[in-house]
Amino acid sequence: MFFASDNGGPTHPNVMEALRVANEGYAMAYGADPIMEQVRDDIRRIFEAPAAAVYLIINGTAANSVLLATMAQPWQTIFCSDCAHIHEDECNAPEFYTQAKLTLVQTENGKMSADALHAKITAEENRGVHGPQRGPLSLTQATEKGTLYDVDEINALTAVARGFGLKTHMDGARFANALVALDCAPAEMTWQAGIDTLSFGATKNGAMGVEACVIFDPDLAWEFELRRKRGGHLLSKHRYLSAQMQAYLADGLWLDMARAANARCAQLADGLSGHNAVHVLFDPQANIIFFQMPRAEHQRMLSGGAVYYVMDGDASEGDPDEMLTGRLVTDWSVTKDRVGGFLNLLRG
Amino acid sequence: MFFASDNGGPTHPNVMEALRVANEGYAMAYGADPIMEQVRDDIRRIFEAPAAAVYLIINGTAANSVLLATMAQPWQTIFCSDCAHIHEDECNAPEFYTQAKLTLVQTENGKMSADALHAKITAEENRGVHGPQRGPLSLTQATEKGTLYDVDEINALTAVARGFGLKTHMDGARFANALVALDCAPAEMTWQAGIDTLSFGATKNGAMGVEACVIFDPDLAWEFELRRKRGGHLLSKHRYLSAQMQAYLADGLWLDMARAANARCAQLADGLSGHNAVHVLFDPQANIIFFQMPRAEHQRMLSGGAVYYVMDGDASEGDPDEMLTGRLVTDWSVTKDRVGGFLNLLRG
Amino acid sequence: MFFASDNGGPTHPNVMEALRVANEGYAMAYGADPIMEQVRDDIRRIFEAPAAAVYLIINGTAANSVLLATMAQPWQTIFCSDCAHIHEDECNAPEFYTQAKLTLVQTENGKMSADALHAKITAEENRGVHGPQRGPLSLTQATEKGTLYDVDEINALTAVARGFGLKTHMDGARFANALVALDCAPAEMTWQAGIDTLSFGATKNGAMGVEACVIFDPDLAWEFELRRKRGGHLLSKHRYLSAQMQAYLADGLWLDMARAANARCAQLADGLSGHNAVHVLFDPQANIIFFQMPRAEHQRMLSGGAVYYVMDGDASEGDPDEMLTGRLVTDWSVTKDRVGGFLNLLRG
Amino acid sequence: MFFASDNGGPTHPNVMEALRVANEGYAMAYGADPIMEQVRDDIRRIFEAPAAAVYLIINGTAANSVLLATMAQPWQTIFCSDCAHIHEDECNAPEFYTQAKLTLVQTENGKMSADALHAKITAEENRGVHGPQRGPLSLTQATEKGTLYDVDEINALTAVARGFGLKTHMDGARFANALVALDCAPAEMTWQAGIDTLSFGATKNGAMGVEACVIFDPDLAWEFELRRKRGGHLLSKHRYLSAQMQAYLADGLWLDMARAANARCAQLADGLSGHNAVHVLFDPQANIIFFQMPRAEHQRMLSGGAVYYVMDGDASEGDPDEMLTGRLVTDWSVTKDRVGGFLNLLRG
Repeated sequence: MFFASDNGGPTHPNVMEALRVANEGYAMAYGADPIMEQVRDDIRRIFEAPAAAVYLIINGTAANSVLLATMAQPWQTIFCSDCAHIHEDECNAPEFYTQAKLTLVQTENGKMSADALHAKITAEENRGVHGPQRGPLSLTQATEKGTLYDVDEINALTAVARGFGLKTHMDGARFANALVALDCAPAEMTWQAGIDTLSFGATKNGAMGVEACVIFDPDLAWEFELRRKRGGHLLSKHRYLSAQMQAYLADGLWLDMARAANARCAQLADGLSGHNAVHVLFDPQANIIFFQMPRAEHQRMLSGGAVYYVMDGDASEGDPDEMLTGRLVTDWSVTKDRVGGFLNLLRG
Repeated sequence: MFFASDNGGPTHPNVMEALRVANEGYAMAYGADPIMEQVRDDIRRIFEAPAAAVYLIINGTAANSVLLATMAQPWQTIFCSDCAHIHEDECNAPEFYTQAKLTLVQTENGKMSADALHAKITAEENRGVHGPQRGPLSLTQATEKGTLYDVDEINALTAVARGFGLKTHMDGARFANALVALDCAPAEMTWQAGIDTLSFGATKNGAMGVEACVIFDPDLAWEFELRRKRGGHLLSKHRYLSAQMQAYLADGLWLDMARAANARCAQLADGLSGHNAVHVLFDPQANIIFFQMPRAEHQRMLSGGAVYYVMDGDASEGDPDEMLTGRLVTDWSVTKDRVGGFLNLLRG
Repeated sequence: MFFASDNGGPTHPNVMEALRVANEGYAMAYGADPIMEQVRDDIRRIFEAPAAAVYLIINGTAANSVLLATMAQPWQTIFCSDCAHIHEDECNAPEFYTQAKLTLVQTENGKMSADALHAKITAEENRGVHGPQRGPLSLTQATEKGTLYDVDEINALTAVARGFGLKTHMDGARFANALVALDCAPAEMTWQAGIDTLSFGATKNGAMGVEACVIFDPDLAWEFELRRKRGGHLLSKHRYLSAQMQAYLADGLWLDMARAANARCAQLADGLSGHNAVHVLFDPQANIIFFQMPRAEHQRMLSGGAVYYVMDGDASEGDPDEMLTGRLVTDWSVTKDRVGGFLNLLRG
Repeated sequence: MFFASDNGGPTHPNVMEALRVANEGYAMAYGADPIMEQVRDDIRRIFEAPAAAVYLIINGTAANSVLLATMAQPWQTIFCSDCAHIHEDECNAPEFYTQAKLTLVQTENGKMSADALHAKITAEENRGVHGPQRGPLSLTQATEKGTLYDVDEINALTAVARGFGLKTHMDGARFANALVALDCAPAEMTWQAGIDTLSFGATKNGAMGVEACVIFDPDLAWEFELRRKRGGHLLSKHRYLSAQMQAYLADGLWLDMARAANARCAQLADGLSGHNAVHVLFDPQANIIFFQMPRAEHQRMLSGGAVYYVMDGDASEGDPDEMLTGRLVTDWSVTKDRVGGFLNLLRG
């Protein structure tokens, strides 16, 4: 009953098969492989962005850091949410690549509001060279709390940024989960809503390890290539990144996998909401649930075979009645039965 | 007739099979997968270094940069050869990660001598805080020119470094090719010869994309882990790195592949040496040959289906008699027939 | 009626005279001048810290940044107040030098509490390599709001830091103003209270441009020297820094100047508190006052010849009744008459 | 008999007097002082560059590093001479500020030739993202060996750089010494000869500690200001930098001081050349002489009261006949008598 993370599950068989097929004969290295041509075309078509620059990179931290480094100057501050992955979970990688700092915008339900963003940008008032200068905005979609910005909310946030002349990056490690939940087009959720660059995740959604960096303003492309290489993130045997992404996009596999993950999450949320001892936090719209439950219950679940993280304490020691927060994440491979087993165990 | 690079060939079927097997069920992320445990044990055993810290990373640039960053301080200079990959081919990645600078030691036959190294270290004389401070030595084995340091030469170079209190890194992107050519034990060529850290390459020798970082002084391990993460180089779905390395090491596959690559290179060198118009540069001991030949001959070979790089000019335009340098690289997958075909074409 | 800043006033005549005297003949460069020997001895004596390493540097931003860089690692976060100069007024210099990030601890009255600090350090929970690692604490004394930590408060804060194995830096740009207000010994306010390194300001208190960096743990000294040079902050004609600091310390001049500045500030605060339209913010204990007053009153003062900053708006345009925040700063050169003139003008 | 360095001598009395005068009353901080206005006008007039951006900074390392950081990208390499101060004497400060690397061009007589420069730039061939990208050229005038590029040579070097689209920085720590020796106009030696930015030294030529950064392309001005602040190099009590530079430029004082220093150097060179045991290296054209002499002679001079550096060995221990290199530097304050005394002592 594994719900620890969407990076713990297997790679989808189609992706594995694409790797096998790509492993024939010789291919030019460093992104000059023919599969990458196709991936570039696919992403431009899917995003209705024929001029976008498209690159592949191994993981979300790298995607976020290299993209932000092409957007931010070392004397600027990047505006992001107070629970942003780039702030909390990347061991200063964004600061390393950008040399900039982060200004945290407070969130509710995992999301910053346009007003909160406006207030933070305004507070970094213009004091000549003394303070950090205003830099880009970074939004996470789906958020780290499993919630979503709807398209209007994204538009409102990027409008605030643009009002100050600032560009916007989207951390889309769970982009597909958000997209299918909102049932909108990729373009609507990105460049049409004011997004300038996108970390387009695949790893958490069935790939082996690949993310696309989509740069809607191709003027930044060459700098991205240099920064990617300088970060050690240009793969020689690049065809294996290309092949993963090709299979991921083919025939809507990425959307099917995201729908499956979201459906299992909804099934979980439904089951949890009917349980007295459980309090679901935030509003699970994608494939993550945070929930509170007494320690004793966590202990019972974990020793019963459920695998998930308890975020704010040790489940095995302490007051059995203390409420602790658990996190459940689903990926494409989670079955209805696994969810059912979890909920049965919970019911006791 | 592909001889462009050892990163253009296919992944060995055993590695592909290991990926398939690893793709069962759920695995803890970020290096906590059980296969990594085995890889760590394997490498410690192979290197007779039971306390070594062992990590996996996606490519050689990252391996070199993160390892050197754990060894060098930002106010130091790293001593390396004037044709070192870290100097010429990594777009300032080592400088980015270390914040240090590089001091180039001149080479003959792709190799620095102990005397040349001593002279360069001495020249960075102690002038208090004014000059860069002396930092670690980095050696490439096999060298970028396809030559080898024998064990005595490595010992002599690391002895010079130690005489100044400096540590030594080995860039082993083609470690296996060197090892089988020298017919020595991994320990002899590394820690017993004064090497402190090793970039242990697999990508160029039949893996899909993985290198091991072997740190013989485990005190540096935790800093390495932090720097790897901060560089965006810790993979979430780490089991797929582990599986590659496991298969690479199993039953001496890595040695077999290196022997095959070296044998094809020797076959090529043998054929080239009998050809009037060809002048073989350096002394090919591993899997790379540099050779000079008139432009017209390069043109004939390339249009005849040979695939390789001409390093110092355009083969298709210019004086047909001008001597240009070609580079041939073999990997495990090159067949005798392919080499035969190349040599036949050369004979005309 | 200049109250804009304590960096706008003249250098004390004793300091000017010391520069004149130092300008005789030849002196070894880069800190090897004999006056520096004396300064080092003076500071060690004054701080009762015979082993402390002592260096001079041109300003507070450089002092803070280079000191913090010797204390923090690039993968750490530095804990500081949400109004800290290192966060708000140094254009990312601390991030540039340390490569670390800052975690902001909320303040009341310009000060963080031990509880607030504890909560922030705890929140940077140990999640392996994923989050930033906990780094040093930086305290400002006197604070940016003109308030003071008493010795017990400093002890409480450094005790929290030490409980997590963290060191503490003190930004003492207005150290003298704090010291005379608390009427304690330099040692009591620093190393005896758990401070590891100190930016010991002189520029704002009558010098021309010099701060001492006092490192109570001399193991960090050599790294400091290298980082200072690498930042371009080692002066060749160092004797002119030494001479300033020598005169600053001689015969308690630094304390006299701080007492004078504080006394004028108290005189101002006294006058302001008796004025209906004025609301004094925080609790002015050193040489800075923040106060609120209607825009029309600010306008009247500024056009009447008072010189000071209005922090949160334009005094010359807008609703005349809106309350705006002014900041008054006194230095050693402010006379009773100037304060009297200001208060008379205020009374109208 | 002090000839150790031109940073060991006293500040000119006119500069001291200007500091005294500037110390009246209050002045706006951070470069907004009225004297800076005048300095900016003076430098624009002297350089016949009415649009140039002009800033002051405390020393040459900072001037070079911040200027180069506005010109170079982190993935580039800066071309400089193999004896450049930015390479040898700044403890990686240029690398710290620029994040770029340095490519060393070999020199004769302290100078690179246009051919040597061309060869090095060409050698950094275009290999896509793999190698460092070509960055700016940095020239030192007068050179670190006391020699000069004439105007034609500067033009030839900048023409090479421009041919590759590269800009040129001039490290003019001894700009005045070069200018009076060449007897040309400042514009001729700089922007008319293709120089884009200039570190315009004053410290070594009679100031207390100030250099101007002259940016002939004002588009770089704002980035310079941000980088200066971020490096901790913006002085609050800026008027004292302004005052030094004002006095330095007034009535051609800077030229008079350089002429005096050069004349004493010529007097020394003349005396040395008549001495059997002495071999003068390079061709002293400004205010520095390198010369070889047996160790025993150095020993005799140093114990007789001469103060200068022996660059390549210990004068007090070793073979008395071994030739060692001494360096003599003159500044404005050196008298004919002091030179006479030195030469008399040498004659024995």
